[in-house]
Amino acid sequence: MAERFHRIALIGIGLIGSSIALAVRRAGLADHVAVQSRRQETVDAAQRLGLGDSYTCDPQQVVNGADLVIVCVPVGAFAAVAQAIAPALKPGAIVTDVGSVKQSVIGQMQPHLPDNVHLVPAHPVAGTEQSGPEAGFAGLFDNRWCILTPLAGTDPNAVERVQAFWEALGAHVDIMDAEHHDLVLAITSHIPHLIAYNIVGTASDVGDVTRKEVMKYAAGGFRDFTRIAASDPTMWRDVFLHNKDAVLEMLGRFSEDLTALQRAIRWGDGETLFDLFARTRDIRRGIIEAGQETDEPDFGRHHGSGDDDLPRPYSSE
Amino acid sequence: MAERFHRIALIGIGLIGSSIALAVRRAGLADHVAVQSRRQETVDAAQRLGLGDSYTCDPQQVVNGADLVIVCVPVGAFAAVAQAIAPALKPGAIVTDVGSVKQSVIGQMQPHLPDNVHLVPAHPVAGTEQSGPEAGFAGLFDNRWCILTPLAGTDPNAVERVQAFWEALGAHVDIMDAEHHDLVLAITSHIPHLIAYNIVGTASDVGDVTRKEVMKYAAGGFRDFTRIAASDPTMWRDVFLHNKDAVLEMLGRFSEDLTALQRAIRWGDGETLFDLFARTRDIRRGIIEAGQETDEPDFGRHHGSGDDDLPRPYSSE
Repeated sequence: MAERFHRIALIGIGLIGSSIALAVRRAGLADHVAVQSRRQETVDAAQRLGLGDSYTCDPQQVVNGADLVIVCVPVGAFAAVAQAIAPALKPGAIVTDVGSVKQSVIGQMQPHLPDNVHLVPAHPVAGTEQSGPEAGFAGLFDNRWCILTPLAGTDPNAVERVQAFWEALGAHVDIMDAEHHDLVLAITSHIPHLIAYNIVGTASDVGDVTRKEVMKYAAGGFRDFTRIAASDPTMWRDVFLHNKDAVLEMLGRFSEDLTALQRAIRWGDGETLFDLFARTRDIRRGIIEAGQETDEPDFGRHHGSGDDDLPRPYSSE
Repeated sequence: MAERFHRIALIGIGLIGSSIALAVRRAGLADHVAVQSRRQETVDAAQRLGLGDSYTCDPQQVVNGADLVIVCVPVGAFAAVAQAIAPALKPGAIVTDVGSVKQSVIGQMQPHLPDNVHLVPAHPVAGTEQSGPEAGFAGLFDNRWCILTPLAGTDPNAVERVQAFWEALGAHVDIMDAEHHDLVLAITSHIPHLIAYNIVGTASDVGDVTRKEVMKYAAGGFRDFTRIAASDPTMWRDVFLHNKDAVLEMLGRFSEDLTALQRAIRWGDGETLFDLFARTRDIRRGIIEAGQETDEPDFGRHHGSGDDDLPRPYSSE
């Protein structure tokens, strides 16, 4: 059972921050949710949406009296946030985050935080291609994994409270070290985003094929890549810059494998192609069985035209 | 208005063949649908599903008396099919297909077909990750594009009948030359499949990260790629071997662009990353506006766990 917090401070109120706000309310986990964003416009939007109980642009004001501080900003902004909030943190407060890269977040925050607060780095592996406070929804973390990467000396009670918090938001929790997290996420999340951005970029620039053609015939496969290539540019720029080593390592493996396929195509080696294509089917089955994917064809997606909305298999693709 | 055919022969009854059979029935386009597959097991399955009016393994028997013959086999099998059916084709029959590569299909079929039949190559840009006669559904082509690549000397009436046929199945029809088709599909379909297969292969082989971890954290982005990497291996092997030039050309561009991103990451060039990531958002919007994609977040997919099925945004991801 998650212990209720007196005051939860959310620093940053984009897709993840706003989803936390809504999930906290759903689970009744806080007396007060204090919302902060650097931009007044975003603070106003959060207030209009009623995401929290108080709203401010000031990072010191938001953490004032908070027993749980959750930093939900792009990975490149953590040093500045830690520096800004440090003087105002309540002794004994838990400071956690949702950053997609853990070693960098730890490296940016730890030097600035006072010794009397507990840093418990966290990463909920969940999201959509949408951004901003309007994009949040309470169910975002349901049945998703949240990875905690506590430091060697962290108070186990603080780690337990953060674990219980995420479980109360609907997530499963895993604990691992930050270095392993960054490697795992490089291959399961960062490289997929990089190659999705890349193929969408390449397709936009093919002179012999118009953008209109690319859009019309996207159902041939291309459209699957455009979803994650519509993700927040600032967040993803920071991910690549701050998980450089793991990303370059995994990208090297991806490129080697792709070169081998290129060679197989050039030399007409159908067996190499078939062998790979046959074994990649299994992993999707495993993801479906792990509860992380739908088993409906085409992700269960409906036509984009909006002219019919009947259940499969007789009317929608 | 599509003219009704007396007898439509389907050679091959996988996802596309079976969907055509069901869509033909939905639209009332034929007096008789004759179904053929090389394997008795597949013929039996098609019969059990009631996809047609007659069933056989014999390619000559199926085309006997047919005024429309639709070849729905992997792209590598067209020469053999053309050779097999040629002696049994009814004079004046229209021969068409659904192959993903048009120059190769034409090159394989044309030499074998008699002069008194009309070859009208076609490619419906539609599909799912599922294969076989059980996977078909009548709505597969609704609102999708079907590309015809008629030859210079083809009877315009035959082309018009095939166009009307696809429109009656729910598709929009475009006409272009086979070479351009192969280039357009290389970037919108073939390269996306190749890199999806490749990233799934790379992720399966990362020793430091277990397959179980890849599956658990797939919601970070990876799972989007596994759908098309679960597509039929034989079909896709043949596509790459038979659209070699266009695929290698587009793959070269993809790899160049990816190398530029790799360099930007290595040198900490955030501006290059941000610029690309910001402009790739638009193209998804264009695909949604073109009616080829859903605008629901996460493709509107539901949890894989099956434990809740309520509408977004408050309960499912």
